[in-house]
Amino acid sequence: MHIAITGGSGFLGQKLAKALLERGYLVDPEGSDAMLEQLTLIDAVKFPRRTDRRVRTITGDICDPLIARTFASERADVIFHLAAVVSGEAEQNFELGMRVNLGGIQNLLEACRQAGYVPRFVFASSVAVFGGELPAVVQDNTATIPQSSYGVQKALGELLVNDYSRRGFVNGRVVRLPTIVVRPGQPNRATSTFASSIIREPLQGQTALCPVSPELRLWVMSPRRAVQNLIHAAELPADAWGDNRIVSLPGLTVSVQQMIESLARVAGAEAVSLIKWQPDPSIENIVGSWPARFNPERAVTLGFEADNSFDEIVRAFMEDELQKQ
Amino acid sequence: MHIAITGGSGFLGQKLAKALLERGYLVDPEGSDAMLEQLTLIDAVKFPRRTDRRVRTITGDICDPLIARTFASERADVIFHLAAVVSGEAEQNFELGMRVNLGGIQNLLEACRQAGYVPRFVFASSVAVFGGELPAVVQDNTATIPQSSYGVQKALGELLVNDYSRRGFVNGRVVRLPTIVVRPGQPNRATSTFASSIIREPLQGQTALCPVSPELRLWVMSPRRAVQNLIHAAELPADAWGDNRIVSLPGLTVSVQQMIESLARVAGAEAVSLIKWQPDPSIENIVGSWPARFNPERAVTLGFEADNSFDEIVRAFMEDELQKQ
Repeated sequence: MHIAITGGSGFLGQKLAKALLERGYLVDPEGSDAMLEQLTLIDAVKFPRRTDRRVRTITGDICDPLIARTFASERADVIFHLAAVVSGEAEQNFELGMRVNLGGIQNLLEACRQAGYVPRFVFASSVAVFGGELPAVVQDNTATIPQSSYGVQKALGELLVNDYSRRGFVNGRVVRLPTIVVRPGQPNRATSTFASSIIREPLQGQTALCPVSPELRLWVMSPRRAVQNLIHAAELPADAWGDNRIVSLPGLTVSVQQMIESLARVAGAEAVSLIKWQPDPSIENIVGSWPARFNPERAVTLGFEADNSFDEIVRAFMEDELQKQ
Repeated sequence: MHIAITGGSGFLGQKLAKALLERGYLVDPEGSDAMLEQLTLIDAVKFPRRTDRRVRTITGDICDPLIARTFASERADVIFHLAAVVSGEAEQNFELGMRVNLGGIQNLLEACRQAGYVPRFVFASSVAVFGGELPAVVQDNTATIPQSSYGVQKALGELLVNDYSRRGFVNGRVVRLPTIVVRPGQPNRATSTFASSIIREPLQGQTALCPVSPELRLWVMSPRRAVQNLIHAAELPADAWGDNRIVSLPGLTVSVQQMIESLARVAGAEAVSLIKWQPDPSIENIVGSWPARFNPERAVTLGFEADNSFDEIVRAFMEDELQKQ
């Protein structure tokens, strides 16, 4: 079994790689466990030093059709396509977002098609595909009217994966990730970066700025669950997907207020006092356009799983990233 | 007022051009009638001889970024983007469909953005964006899970127009056309071409092949209404569209059986006897994946109009194309 990850030096790519290496196998299309022999990571950003002999790293940009072709020539059995320009950056730099978030997946899919090989192709989409006038609870058949360029680019990628799959060019699977919290490391240019900052920074004794109101609700998932669900997406048989390769993952609906209450329960009032309020209407508008309530019926039927509580999410972050219990 | 039409030598492009020239004006963004001074038609296919001094024709392919830029440099106040590879052809020739139906609109939108001018941009989308597991009646917020490459390409174009509009690069309007019947001329490579043939050919004393079952239902609109609704889409103020520039037009739900009954009422049993049944499951599958029942609430609110009956559609064809009453 040869697995490849685009965006392999990113936060989620690294976590997914680690999980796959630890696990050591993936279920193949015949339903048997296939040992992981090679893990190819590609990213435009440089990689941390390689520590596992199964790992091969490629520094390169999948927006370049030539690089995409080289990557496809590896003929990985499974490709996890995670590489993306994050939401805030795609909004600020339209051309960059289009080139990476649309052009990148187009290059990859075309490279597979032209090479004539059919990988399982797992694409990380986003709750940001939803926006505009939405029902109180988003259903599996709710239309995607994104209100950000990032969301549009993800929605375009979804449709492409669906058609390339229908035509037998790839064996696609698209999972719409909720907002992933708590991300480790530094704040990034995702519009939702605050949702991690307000937990991560106080837990490490640092102040965090919250640009949105306490009432704002989010649909969230922990990095652990995200990795677990990405692997599950790859392992599901093609038949299970039917004529739609897209699924909205099951998340948790939490308000910023509830997130802070969890922080208080897990880490005490002192941590909470490190959160400073600094409203930014542009962030509130974009994040507020993403729905926070879903009926993820299809995902549940397919065996995808949500986190159990936000307290659990905070504790998982502490275990995984801060080495405290 | 300068208006441009891509696909201007096509059946709908020619009808739209004729209607605009006869009308002689279009409502401008300030709500006043603006006289039509220039009508630019572009098409990869050659044009019939020009008969109106206001018309300028360009033979060229908007899939070529250079041609798209030249076209955009005309700075038409309103662009009707009708150029497309039809459904059957896009299914048969994947690369051609992607290049024209996705690449074409990308080139046009980019050319406008890079030229820094903001035309009203009317895009003819299609009911084919819908497919897969659908509710009994398609709502305005039903997800688009197309089951044909043509449908996917149209859905991609819709999302692009929405985002280019949200960002102020164009002033977009997308109308999802029902199956247009009765088309004049020869059968084309649209999967739904039979829906016109079974009326058009018998009315001219010729036999027609029907590849689908009499129970198959379609969501249809006459060319007259389509032209009227395209013009209405251009004239609506931007505010009326809100944060979604896409609308499913109101059509008529008719079964093939009901279409034939109309033909009998309007032209007699003799005409009907010219229809021969020759089932083609591949056509039945694709056309059957398009929904036939809609609740076009948004369109009706915005002032778009459906045909009154299929009898009226048959009579309109006879008036417009056969010069009989």
